Amino acid sequence: MVSSEVVKDLALKSETKIVLVVIDGVGGLPDPETGRTELEAAETPHLDELAHKGICGLIDPIGRGITPGSGPAHLSLFGYDPLRYKIGRGALAAMGIGFELGHQDLAARINFATIDRDGIVTDRRARRIPTERNQELCEKLRQIEIPGVEIFVEPVKEHRAVVVFRGADLSEELTDSDPQKIGLPAREVQALSPSASKAAGIVNEFITLAKDILANEKPANMILLRGFAKHPHIPTMRDIYGLRCGAIATYPMYKGISRIVGMDVLPTGPNISDQFGTLERNFNSYDFFYLHIKATDSAGEDGDFDRKAEIIREIDSQVPRLTDLNPDVIVVTGDHSTPSLLKSHSWHPVPIIIYSKWCRPDSVSAFSESECGRGSLGRFPATEVMVLALAHALRLGKYGA
Amino acid sequence: MVSSEVVKDLALKSETKIVLVVIDGVGGLPDPETGRTELEAAETPHLDELAHKGICGLIDPIGRGITPGSGPAHLSLFGYDPLRYKIGRGALAAMGIGFELGHQDLAARINFATIDRDGIVTDRRARRIPTERNQELCEKLRQIEIPGVEIFVEPVKEHRAVVVFRGADLSEELTDSDPQKIGLPAREVQALSPSASKAAGIVNEFITLAKDILANEKPANMILLRGFAKHPHIPTMRDIYGLRCGAIATYPMYKGISRIVGMDVLPTGPNISDQFGTLERNFNSYDFFYLHIKATDSAGEDGDFDRKAEIIREIDSQVPRLTDLNPDVIVVTGDHSTPSLLKSHSWHPVPIIIYSKWCRPDSVSAFSESECGRGSLGRFPATEVMVLALAHALRLGKYGA
Repeated sequence: MVSSEVVKDLALKSETKIVLVVIDGVGGLPDPETGRTELEAAETPHLDELAHKGICGLIDPIGRGITPGSGPAHLSLFGYDPLRYKIGRGALAAMGIGFELGHQDLAARINFATIDRDGIVTDRRARRIPTERNQELCEKLRQIEIPGVEIFVEPVKEHRAVVVFRGADLSEELTDSDPQKIGLPAREVQALSPSASKAAGIVNEFITLAKDILANEKPANMILLRGFAKHPHIPTMRDIYGLRCGAIATYPMYKGISRIVGMDVLPTGPNISDQFGTLERNFNSYDFFYLHIKATDSAGEDGDFDRKAEIIREIDSQVPRLTDLNPDVIVVTGDHSTPSLLKSHSWHPVPIIIYSKWCRPDSVSAFSESECGRGSLGRFPATEVMVLALAHALRLGKYGA
Repeated sequence: MVSSEVVKDLALKSETKIVLVVIDGVGGLPDPETGRTELEAAETPHLDELAHKGICGLIDPIGRGITPGSGPAHLSLFGYDPLRYKIGRGALAAMGIGFELGHQDLAARINFATIDRDGIVTDRRARRIPTERNQELCEKLRQIEIPGVEIFVEPVKEHRAVVVFRGADLSEELTDSDPQKIGLPAREVQALSPSASKAAGIVNEFITLAKDILANEKPANMILLRGFAKHPHIPTMRDIYGLRCGAIATYPMYKGISRIVGMDVLPTGPNISDQFGTLERNFNSYDFFYLHIKATDSAGEDGDFDRKAEIIREIDSQVPRLTDLNPDVIVVTGDHSTPSLLKSHSWHPVPIIIYSKWCRPDSVSAFSESECGRGSLGRFPATEVMVLALAHALRLGKYGA
C-alpha cells in the first residue's frame, strides 16, 4: 500500500469536492428465506443509478476476516493504516463530546454501575440511568480534588461518562477497573509499565473517593473505568490531503474521530434529512464531507432486518439532494458490515461505489453486496478509498517521472 | 507480495522465452458518445485471440489511485518495488542516451533556456532549438574545466541535454536550478545535506561558466539543471531472474531504464514494424524481450483518441509476427493508462494478457479494459507480472518443500 507520506507528497491544490457517505454497518447477510441481504431487500433506485454510473467493489476495513470496531474502521476509510494509528476509547469518548483533549491529558470512559454490599458488580450499567441523573452524578464527582492533577468529569449519555486527568507524566499504560462481567468486584487499576505508576495511583485514588461520594446513590453507586488513552499523534486530513473537511455525524464517537483527524464537526439535526440539509448549507465551505449515518448499524445490532432495510431506503430517497450538488466525487460505503442475522459488527467486506465523471464505468448496475463483488474495483483494503477518491477528484499528481 | 529476493532464490535455468509487450499508456476512458475506450474502438483480432487463449486482468502500476510516471511504472512491470527503488531523472536521462554512468558520476538534466537582461527566465525551452544547434552548444560547454572533476555534456534532443560530473564525494542531494516557471531567475543549486556542499559548489560554478559561454547565443543563452541523480543501486534482471534480457525501445528514457535493470538495448528502427523485425532477428539470442511502443502514449497525451486507436490497430497487425515466433510466454499490457480524454497519464488500472500454453484460460474473449476487468487474474499490482510470466515459462521452482 502507498503510505500516507507518499500521498501527502502527491496532493495537489484543487477546487474539486468529495463527499464520503458512510452508511454504518451497511453490509449484511442474506435472509435465509428470501436469499436477499438488507441492502438487496431495500428499494434503492438512486444508489443503483450511482453504482451504474460509477465503479464498484468490496472493501475490507482492516483485513480479510477481521471484524472492525468503529474507530479503526473509520481511520481506514480516512486513509490511515489502522494497525499503525491507534486511538484509545477514552480519547475517542472525550473528543466525541467536544472535550478539547490536550497532550497532558489522560482520558478514560466511565460507566456508572451498581455494586452490592460486598463490592461485587451486579449491573455494569446501573440500569442505564437517565442522562439527567448522569449529569447530577458527574457534578458530584467534580468535587474530588487530587494534588498535582486537574480533573474533568463529563457526562456522555445514560450510564456513560468521561473522566480526564490533566497533569505531567500521566501514562496511558493502565489496566481497566471494569471487570467486564458481573459477579466480580471492580479491579484495581494497575500500571503496565513503571512510568505509569504515578497515573495508576491517581486513578485509584479517584475511584476510591468516587465510591465514597456515590455510596448512597441508587442504582449508580460505583464507577467503572476503562479505555485509558491520551491524545493520539496523528496527522490531520488537511495536513495529508490538503482538504478542508467537514463532518456531518450525529453520534459522539463519530464526531470524536472526525475531530481527531482534523475535521470541523458541523451542527446538524437528528434525522437523516437534517444531515443532508447540513451538507447542502455547507457545501461551498469545504472540500471534503464525511456524512455518517448511524441508524443502519443500530438496526443491525438489534437484529431488525426490516428496519435496517427501511433506513437504507430512506437514505436512498435523500441521494438526489446529494447528486444535485454535483460534487466531483461521491463515495458511498460503510465502515463495516452489521448483518441483522449476527446482531453485531462482522468481518464481511463492505460494498462501495465511487462515482466521478473520470471513472471508467464497470458493468455493475445496483448497489448490493453481490453486484459490487463483480465491480472493477475488485476487493481491496479500505485504506485505499481516499487515494481513489482524490485521484478521481484530480487532486493527486504523478508518482515519479 | 513475494519479494525479489525470494523470487531470485526460486529462479530456475531454462530455455524458455518470454516476450513482454508494453503498449505505453494503453488504458483509456470511454468516449462519452460511443461508450468505448480507445482499445475498445480499435479492431484488434489478434490481441483478442491472445486474450481468449490466455488469462487476463487489470494491473495497478504503483497502487490504486496513483498516477505513475514512466520510470516507476516500468520498474514495477520489471518486478521491482517502485516505492523501494527510485531512479533520479538525471540518471535515467544519461543512461537513456547510452552514457555509461559510473558510481562516481553525478548526472543532471539540462534544459537550454532563454533569459532576459535581468536574468529572468523567459522561455524554459529556448523555443525548442533544433537538435543540431543543441549539439553545437554542448560542444561549446565541453570547454568548461573545473579542478577535481571530469565533466561530460551530451545532447539529448531539441532543448534537452545531460551533464555528468565525475569525481569523488559528489552527492545527489541538491536542489534544481530550474525554477520550473518563467518570470523567475534561475535558482542557485543548494545542498540538501552537509555532504552535498562540495557538489553544490561545483555545479554552481559550472552554471556560472556556462552562462558566460552562452551569453551571446540566441535564444539559448542559459542552462537550467534539474533531477540530480547518481547511478541507482539496483540488482539486474539477470541477477534476479537469470534472464538474458533484450530491450526493443525507440525513446531514450525507456532505453535508459532498460540499461539500468541490465538489459541489452537492441538497435531498431523508428516504426512499430521495425521493432517487431528486431524481435525476429534477435529471438534466438535472449530469454526475455521488452518491446516498448511509445506512440499510443503520445497520442493519448495529445488528446487524439482516433490516432491512439489507430496505433493500437497497427500494433495488432504485427502480433502474428510475435506469435509465429512461438515464445513460451507472451505478456501484453501497458505501463499505465493515458486516456485521450485526460490528455495525461492517469491512475486507471491497465489491462493485461498473459498467454502461455500453461495458463488456465478464463472466459475473456477480447483485449479491453472491461473484458480484462472480468479476467481470472483479477486486479493486482504490476510488481507481480514478472513472477507470473516466469511461472508460466516454468522458470520458478517450488517455495519450500
